[in-house]
Amino acid sequence: MPYGKLIDYAEAAPEAKAVMDEIKTARGVPDVNNAWKAMARHPVVMRRFWERAQLVMQPGALDAKTKELIYLAVSVANGCHYCTASHSALAQKKGATEQELAEMVEIVGLALEGNSYATFYGQEVDEALKE
Amino acid sequence: MPYGKLIDYAEAAPEAKAVMDEIKTARGVPDVNNAWKAMARHPVVMRRFWERAQLVMQPGALDAKTKELIYLAVSVANGCHYCTASHSALAQKKGATEQELAEMVEIVGLALEGNSYATFYGQEVDEALKE
Amino acid sequence: MPYGKLIDYAEAAPEAKAVMDEIKTARGVPDVNNAWKAMARHPVVMRRFWERAQLVMQPGALDAKTKELIYLAVSVANGCHYCTASHSALAQKKGATEQELAEMVEIVGLALEGNSYATFYGQEVDEALKE
Amino acid sequence: MPYGKLIDYAEAAPEAKAVMDEIKTARGVPDVNNAWKAMARHPVVMRRFWERAQLVMQPGALDAKTKELIYLAVSVANGCHYCTASHSALAQKKGATEQELAEMVEIVGLALEGNSYATFYGQEVDEALKE
Amino acid sequence: MPYGKLIDYAEAAPEAKAVMDEIKTARGVPDVNNAWKAMARHPVVMRRFWERAQLVMQPGALDAKTKELIYLAVSVANGCHYCTASHSALAQKKGATEQELAEMVEIVGLALEGNSYATFYGQEVDEALKE
Amino acid sequence: MPYGKLIDYAEAAPEAKAVMDEIKTARGVPDVNNAWKAMARHPVVMRRFWERAQLVMQPGALDAKTKELIYLAVSVANGCHYCTASHSALAQKKGATEQELAEMVEIVGLALEGNSYATFYGQEVDEALKE
Repeated sequence: MPYGKLIDYAEAAPEAKAVMDEIKTARGVPDVNNAWKAMARHPVVMRRFWERAQLVMQPGALDAKTKELIYLAVSVANGCHYCTASHSALAQKKGATEQELAEMVEIVGLALEGNSYATFYGQEVDEALKE
Repeated sequence: MPYGKLIDYAEAAPEAKAVMDEIKTARGVPDVNNAWKAMARHPVVMRRFWERAQLVMQPGALDAKTKELIYLAVSVANGCHYCTASHSALAQKKGATEQELAEMVEIVGLALEGNSYATFYGQEVDEALKE
Repeated sequence: MPYGKLIDYAEAAPEAKAVMDEIKTARGVPDVNNAWKAMARHPVVMRRFWERAQLVMQPGALDAKTKELIYLAVSVANGCHYCTASHSALAQKKGATEQELAEMVEIVGLALEGNSYATFYGQEVDEALKE
Repeated sequence: MPYGKLIDYAEAAPEAKAVMDEIKTARGVPDVNNAWKAMARHPVVMRRFWERAQLVMQPGALDAKTKELIYLAVSVANGCHYCTASHSALAQKKGATEQELAEMVEIVGLALEGNSYATFYGQEVDEALKE
Repeated sequence: MPYGKLIDYAEAAPEAKAVMDEIKTARGVPDVNNAWKAMARHPVVMRRFWERAQLVMQPGALDAKTKELIYLAVSVANGCHYCTASHSALAQKKGATEQELAEMVEIVGLALEGNSYATFYGQEVDEALKE
Repeated sequence: MPYGKLIDYAEAAPEAKAVMDEIKTARGVPDVNNAWKAMARHPVVMRRFWERAQLVMQPGALDAKTKELIYLAVSVANGCHYCTASHSALAQKKGATEQELAEMVEIVGLALEGNSYATFYGQEVDEALKE
C-alpha cells in the first residue's frame, strides 16, 4: 500500500473502525485526523499505539497539558512535522497558551545547544550526580 | 586542549571565573559542576550559554519545574547522558518527584514511537491543523 | 541550483546519464526515481553512492529483503520521509509483506523507547557484555 | 535517586522483583542485566516496557533474529551505546553471526548517508510511491 | 494559530516588523523568507534568534562561508529540509560553489557512517586524546 | 566478540594489519587509535571505511581543515563522543585553532536551535529557493 495513503472510516477494516470510534468518542471529534487514517493500514499497530497513548498521556502526577508539552517538545527536537502540528493543537486544546508554546520551543533549542556542548567538551558525569 | 579536561576555578581564566562565581551565587552551591569546568576552555561560549540558559529557564508562563522537565525530556530523547544526569538533578531540586520523572520518561518513548509512525505512514498534515 | 530540482535523463550530464542507465538496468525500470534525478546535480556523489549502495545491499550473509528492512528501519528512526517511501517500495519488491512491515515499524518505536530508558537511567555497560 | 544507580534483586521493590523473576525465567539467566537493575527505580515503567518488549520481539512474520537485528540497527543509528552492547549480545544469542553483524552495521551507515542526500537534495516523494 | 501559517509584514506585530526590517537591511533583500514570517507568531523568540544568529554567524576566526557550510552540514545531518534549503542558498550567496556543496554533503554521510561504527564497536576514548 | 574490545596490531587479522599499516604511514603515527583497533573485528568494514574516508576527506575544493571541521560539527550534533574526541584532535592537527573550535561548536548549537524552529513553525520552503 502506498506511502501517505489515507484510509477513511468507510473503507477501514473493522478493527481499525473500532479504534476510530474510540478516538472520536474520547476526543469528542466527528472524525479522526490523518495520522489514524494512515495507521489504519495496520490495525494491530494502530490499536496498540492508541491504547498505549491513552495510558501514558492520562493525567497523573503530571497534568494533561504538561504531558502534551513534553510530547510536543520531543517531537520538535526530533524533527517530526506531523507530530508537531498535531500535538501543538492537542496542547492548545488542553490549555497551553501561545506564550507557553513560545517558551517551550526556546527550551528545545537551548537543550539541543546544551547537549552539543556536553558532547563537544566531553566531561564525565559528576560523582555527586551518581550518589 | 584534550577531550573531557576539567578546568578548576583556581586555574580558570578570569572571564570563566566570573561565570563560575555567578553560577555559584545563583544556585547556592560551593562549586560548579563538570559541565562548566569543561566549558571554561572557551569563556566566551560559556558566558553566552550561561546567560541564555538563565534567560530561557527563568519562570515565565511555564514554571521552573515544568521548564526543567521539558529540557530533560529533550536531552533524553537526544541521547545526552551528561545533560540527563545534570537536569534530572535540577528538576528534582525544582520540585520534580520520582513519579513525575517516571511519567516524563515514558512520554519521551511514546513520542519517539509516535514520530516513527508519522515517518513510516507518511500522512500529510491535516488541513484543519493549518487553519 | 535550487532545492528539490529534478534533472531528467535528457538534460543530465553524461556521467549522471551513465549512472541512470545502470540503475534502470539493475532494477529493470524504465526511469529512475526522484532521488537519482535530484542527485544528478552532483554526478560524482551520485556515482559513488550508487556503487556503494550496490555493494552493501547485495545479498550476503543477510538476504536482500532483510537488508532492505534494516535500511528502512534506520530511515524511519531517522525521520527520513523520502527514504521511507522509496525503501518501503524496495522492501516490498524484495518480498516484504504488509505484516513484516507492520512488525518492523513497531520494533523501531520499541528500540527508540528502550534507547531513551538507557539514556535516562544511565547504567554502565555490563562487564559481561565486554568479555 | 542518582544517575546510573543499580538496584540489585535483594533491594528491589516487590513489583520490580517480579519483573526480574520473569526475565530470568524467559531468558534462562541467573541475573538480569544492568538495564533492568537501573529501571527498577520505576517498577511501573519497567513492567510496561518488559511486557511491550516481549510482545513486539516475539517471533511473528519476522523471526527473532531478524527482529533483533532491526532493533540493534536502530540503536546503532540512534547512538545508544548500552542498547548496542546488549542487543548485539541478544542478536548473537538468537543466531546472528559476525558476518551478519558486519553487514548490518554497514547498512546503518549507508542508510544514514542516503538519508542525508534526501535531505540535501530535497526531492519530493515520487507520485508512483503514493499510488 | 495554525501550523505553517505565514505572517506577512503588513499584518505582523510591531516587534516582528522591526526584526523584519533589520533582516531586510542586513541581507539587502526586499522581503524576508518564510522562516521569519512563520516565527513572527512569537516576536520575542524571533528577536532573540535573529540577534543570536547575527552574533554567531558573523565572520570571526572562521569566515562567513565556512560558517554557513557548518550550519548547513548540521542541518542536513539533522534532517531539516527547510534549513537545508535556506542555508544552501545563504552558503552560495557567501561564495560556496557547487563543488564545495558536493564535498560538504559527502562529509555529512561519512561522518554519520563513522559515528555509527563508534557506537557499534564501542571503543573507549583513547587516553592520548584526553591528555 | 565483546563490546568495546580492542584488537592490537599483533593479534589482528592480516587484512586488518594491512589497513593499520596504511593508517600509520598516512598519518605518521606509531600506532592507530582505538577506533581502528575496535573495527579490526571486521576487516572488510574497516578497509572500506578507511578507503572512503581517505577519498572524501582529501583536500579538494574544500581544504583539509574545513573538511575536518564539518566532520566534527556533524559528530557533535549527532552526539558521538568518540568521534568528537578524535576529530577534534585531527582538526587541530590540520590547523584548527581553539578560537575556530569555539566558533564551530556555537554554530552547531545555533543550527540545532534553528532546525527546531523550522519544525515547530512548519513553514513551507520558499518558492524562490526552488527556482
